[in-house]
Amino acid sequence: MAKKTFHFADRLVEAINKKGTPICVGLDPRLEQIPDFIKKAHIAKKGRSFVAAADAILEFNKGIIDAVHDLVPVVKPQFAFYEQYGFSGVWAFEETCKYAQEKGLIVIADAKCNDIGSTAEAYANAFLGEVDLFGEKVPQMDCDAVTVNPYLGYDGVKPFMEVCKKKGKGIFVLVKTSNHSSGDLQDRVTEDKLKNYEVTAHFLESWGADEIGQFGYSAIGAVIGATFPVEAKRLREIMPHVYFLVPGYGAQGGKAADVKACFNKDGLGAIINSSRDIIFAWQKEGNEKNYAAAAREKTLAMKADLSNI
Amino acid sequence: MAKKTFHFADRLVEAINKKGTPICVGLDPRLEQIPDFIKKAHIAKKGRSFVAAADAILEFNKGIIDAVHDLVPVVKPQFAFYEQYGFSGVWAFEETCKYAQEKGLIVIADAKCNDIGSTAEAYANAFLGEVDLFGEKVPQMDCDAVTVNPYLGYDGVKPFMEVCKKKGKGIFVLVKTSNHSSGDLQDRVTEDKLKNYEVTAHFLESWGADEIGQFGYSAIGAVIGATFPVEAKRLREIMPHVYFLVPGYGAQGGKAADVKACFNKDGLGAIINSSRDIIFAWQKEGNEKNYAAAAREKTLAMKADLSNI
Repeated sequence: MAKKTFHFADRLVEAINKKGTPICVGLDPRLEQIPDFIKKAHIAKKGRSFVAAADAILEFNKGIIDAVHDLVPVVKPQFAFYEQYGFSGVWAFEETCKYAQEKGLIVIADAKCNDIGSTAEAYANAFLGEVDLFGEKVPQMDCDAVTVNPYLGYDGVKPFMEVCKKKGKGIFVLVKTSNHSSGDLQDRVTEDKLKNYEVTAHFLESWGADEIGQFGYSAIGAVIGATFPVEAKRLREIMPHVYFLVPGYGAQGGKAADVKACFNKDGLGAIINSSRDIIFAWQKEGNEKNYAAAAREKTLAMKADLSNI
Repeated sequence: MAKKTFHFADRLVEAINKKGTPICVGLDPRLEQIPDFIKKAHIAKKGRSFVAAADAILEFNKGIIDAVHDLVPVVKPQFAFYEQYGFSGVWAFEETCKYAQEKGLIVIADAKCNDIGSTAEAYANAFLGEVDLFGEKVPQMDCDAVTVNPYLGYDGVKPFMEVCKKKGKGIFVLVKTSNHSSGDLQDRVTEDKLKNYEVTAHFLESWGADEIGQFGYSAIGAVIGATFPVEAKRLREIMPHVYFLVPGYGAQGGKAADVKACFNKDGLGAIINSSRDIIFAWQKEGNEKNYAAAAREKTLAMKADLSNI
């Protein structure tokens, strides 16, 4: 039996090579935008309840996953869109992650965790590791990676790094985010002439240095917005061994040319996320019954677009 | 009928004045530290399951809340300790918040949210506002306040501010956290001679300036670690209208003298959090059946300690 790849970055690269594209599909299921026929079916069963909302979200996600799982290596469910339906929504999050992994996809939980000490450990265990259940260690959400916010410094990242090492998981730490006001703090120039996002970048490159996988990448990735191509170029230089998770392509305005700077010369080093543009592609053509086919078509179009760079 | 106070900071001050202390009890229910008699009862009913863990957490929390609700104005459940038991744990979180509010407590959800645009809106709606449930707006967790991380800038805070204004809720934004490595980013000096946490502080003071309540405080608070009294003094000067949520007292090493700088001359301006020291006070005396009474005694001791400053 072939040894299963353990290191997160190695698993990521193998999945990208297998699918021939670095696309990550963002599973951000806004209930308002889920096709009516799905919602009506679940309202009929369980009323206008949070449980019905969770069921509708899960059915929608499964349709998207079925439509794209053979095309892309990674999906990224955004925790907020599940959590807003309370514990029922979190159930739908867990089931979505499970289903995606069963279909061979790498799952990045986009929860932007940030805390310290035993609290950060609790988040790391919840999303990636094993939790203490009456003295026994059992996996909980068991995602492949999770996003992390760096404002609390090394204490806020180390507990995740430890779980990554032990369980072959990964993290993506926010460095330069895709939003307009990301510069409020991230772009401030410090006395040593580095911008704050560059300071964060140097941290990530050094934190991951001891655990580089066979393709030259560490399990500690970075979130770099597609909307800042000039900054991305500089960040690629600072972090040669760090994988980039790049949101902001598509709906937020990022184009294929903009994300080019996120890749290394080996053609690796970045996964490009698209959420709304893919999962709600059906809204442009207007036939809700075709939502999964529309998502597949849009994914193929994105794949073609990215292959030009 | 007397008009119910709406502005979050006004509600907070009224609750502090009523209880005569600015203590916040942190509800961080580590399952390992919950008394065995509670755990055994729930294992007997539902096996060694996540549901039993959630039930044990909720029973433990209710015991603590019953023991301290007449003494303190605020509780702060930390989301990670619930989320690690998956959707069952999130159910226990929701029920804990509800129960605390029924007992007249202000609930700060410690989830350190951070995201942008419609995702930040989803978090704000989940914790504080109303979510879209098949076209109808309904409250979800409906907490009184939530903690927020500032790394993404104004875009990451504005959606919360809007909900605060509309619903009389509050936020506490991380400024200077209590952990050792908080300085990695927060203490970096920028070109304009301000440390990053001071930059964040200036943002908070200005963001809240339009919505000052009758006691002189805005609904946009700050998280300031008790472990950095010198920094707290400076931050108190930068943010005269900002309420401080101060973790790090007790178990993390902060003392009453250390938190003094967090208060304004009006004796207001800070709530002091203690988690482990209070809720697991029973472990020092060893009688698990007395866990609630031990928590009450420790709360009274903290109240006496704080009244000296």
